[in-house]
Amino acid sequence: MNFEVTILGSGAALPTSNRNPTAQYIQCNDRHILIDCGEGTQVQLRKYHVHIQKINHILISHLHGDHFFGLVGLLSSLHLLGRDKGLTIYGPEELEQIIRLQLEVGGAKLGFDLHFVKLNGQEHRLIFEDKLIEIWTFPLNHRIPTNGFLIKEKPKERKLNADRFEETGLSLTLIPKLKQGLDVELESGEVIYADEYTYAAKPSKSYAFCSDTIFDERIVSYIKGVNVLYHEATFLNDKLDRAKQTFHSTAQQAATIAKQAEVGKLLLGHLSARYENSARHLEEAIPVFENVRVVEDGETYLI
Amino acid sequence: MNFEVTILGSGAALPTSNRNPTAQYIQCNDRHILIDCGEGTQVQLRKYHVHIQKINHILISHLHGDHFFGLVGLLSSLHLLGRDKGLTIYGPEELEQIIRLQLEVGGAKLGFDLHFVKLNGQEHRLIFEDKLIEIWTFPLNHRIPTNGFLIKEKPKERKLNADRFEETGLSLTLIPKLKQGLDVELESGEVIYADEYTYAAKPSKSYAFCSDTIFDERIVSYIKGVNVLYHEATFLNDKLDRAKQTFHSTAQQAATIAKQAEVGKLLLGHLSARYENSARHLEEAIPVFENVRVVEDGETYLI
Repeated sequence: MNFEVTILGSGAALPTSNRNPTAQYIQCNDRHILIDCGEGTQVQLRKYHVHIQKINHILISHLHGDHFFGLVGLLSSLHLLGRDKGLTIYGPEELEQIIRLQLEVGGAKLGFDLHFVKLNGQEHRLIFEDKLIEIWTFPLNHRIPTNGFLIKEKPKERKLNADRFEETGLSLTLIPKLKQGLDVELESGEVIYADEYTYAAKPSKSYAFCSDTIFDERIVSYIKGVNVLYHEATFLNDKLDRAKQTFHSTAQQAATIAKQAEVGKLLLGHLSARYENSARHLEEAIPVFENVRVVEDGETYLI
Repeated sequence: MNFEVTILGSGAALPTSNRNPTAQYIQCNDRHILIDCGEGTQVQLRKYHVHIQKINHILISHLHGDHFFGLVGLLSSLHLLGRDKGLTIYGPEELEQIIRLQLEVGGAKLGFDLHFVKLNGQEHRLIFEDKLIEIWTFPLNHRIPTNGFLIKEKPKERKLNADRFEETGLSLTLIPKLKQGLDVELESGEVIYADEYTYAAKPSKSYAFCSDTIFDERIVSYIKGVNVLYHEATFLNDKLDRAKQTFHSTAQQAATIAKQAEVGKLLLGHLSARYENSARHLEEAIPVFENVRVVEDGETYLI
């Protein structure tokens, strides 16, 4: 079981030779999720050796082009490569019309079903769950309705202490309960305590994605305590006015959110093309929140 | 005055690491034209150092994604980079809705005027002219309506033999007529012959673009005698059936069109991602038409 995020695009509205527009690929317990899909994402996926047909959830934060212009091209390629497995896209309502219109004019009939789940950028709610993971959306605060996302593992089972359990000669049918942490009373009246025969469960991890957004402390409650937070940092302090005006954040503001939310690690991205490197983003973020990275295209982070 | 084409994308529907989807940048006598705009074209334009704000005509052949999915991203970037000069897009009718819808949902109001000229893939007509160039469209034969394009220089002026003209002591007002090749009768009755005082005009060049299309000899009449023909060659002879079925051409078929049209040079592109290199395309084309190249992304050809 693994949980990691691969950065496919770390730039802002204007792609540069180093930074593609926003896209991230998340693997979580064999679930394969794409968040945002800027122009060129399908080429980035190939470049970084992602098995694109494994993706079955695509989350689109909002309808600025640098977050979705690559989606229709990716869907076309999935089709051309023979996909027949359905795909669910979670995003703003108008996205469905945009995608279906462009496929329709080309006379393309996809070989797979496309399901759209509408998000309005204003709700905090669970949008997907299965036995291993949950995906939540929550509101960000940008010029147009924008969705943040939280991906978390469900509580895990405790691990059996097999040696000790075998010594007891007890029935194997007790194991599922013990793994869930439940004590079991035998017919004899003896109580088998879960914590004596199992090890503590591995902690469940979580990852939050916040792009694009103005500095807004209301976000803190939605992402409290996540292991890894990705937060946009389009600007530096010298462009604080510009950040406010365009509903974006600075590196220091992103660090402030990370600190207040007591996250484990902060990833910064969505850097404006005006910045030639990321040194100043780190300089301004570290005094507020130390465990921070500025992401680059192609990097993978364990959650 | 120059006339050249830069290949921005030489691949077919599936982009590869070497071949972007279709796009070409044409400079013709200081006119700057983009033909097709597959996903990633804006990055290719930057990579090959094109001054993108110079582009003022965009020609879109048809609405398969590998020929236009990059257009909305390019327009967004032109806007973000401060463009205020209008831009004309020539293409299928539905293109306007597709572009305007995507800009609208993002709340973007372009800083420049966008003019759309509708092409239906069925007409042979002049779509633009000024004093130096003409742009024509003509029908190709593909699964959906598809436009071919022909860019040609207008007839050029003859060049004055300045030394000889000065010897005559004649009025400079005669020069424009002589440059047009017109003889001039003076009041004295003496005739000044244009070809005695001017050199022959440089020949006017022309470039034709044919992608995507099934092998169709009706195209020959539209492109007769062009200096350079770009013709798609998605397949080789071993996939002749597939070419017919998908309304594409083979390298040999493209060469046959070039031969019949008596063009100067043939450029082949739109190669299916299944072909690892271009050697067999050349092998199959050369016996039919010798002056042929298989284009690569980033190459520039003088017309």
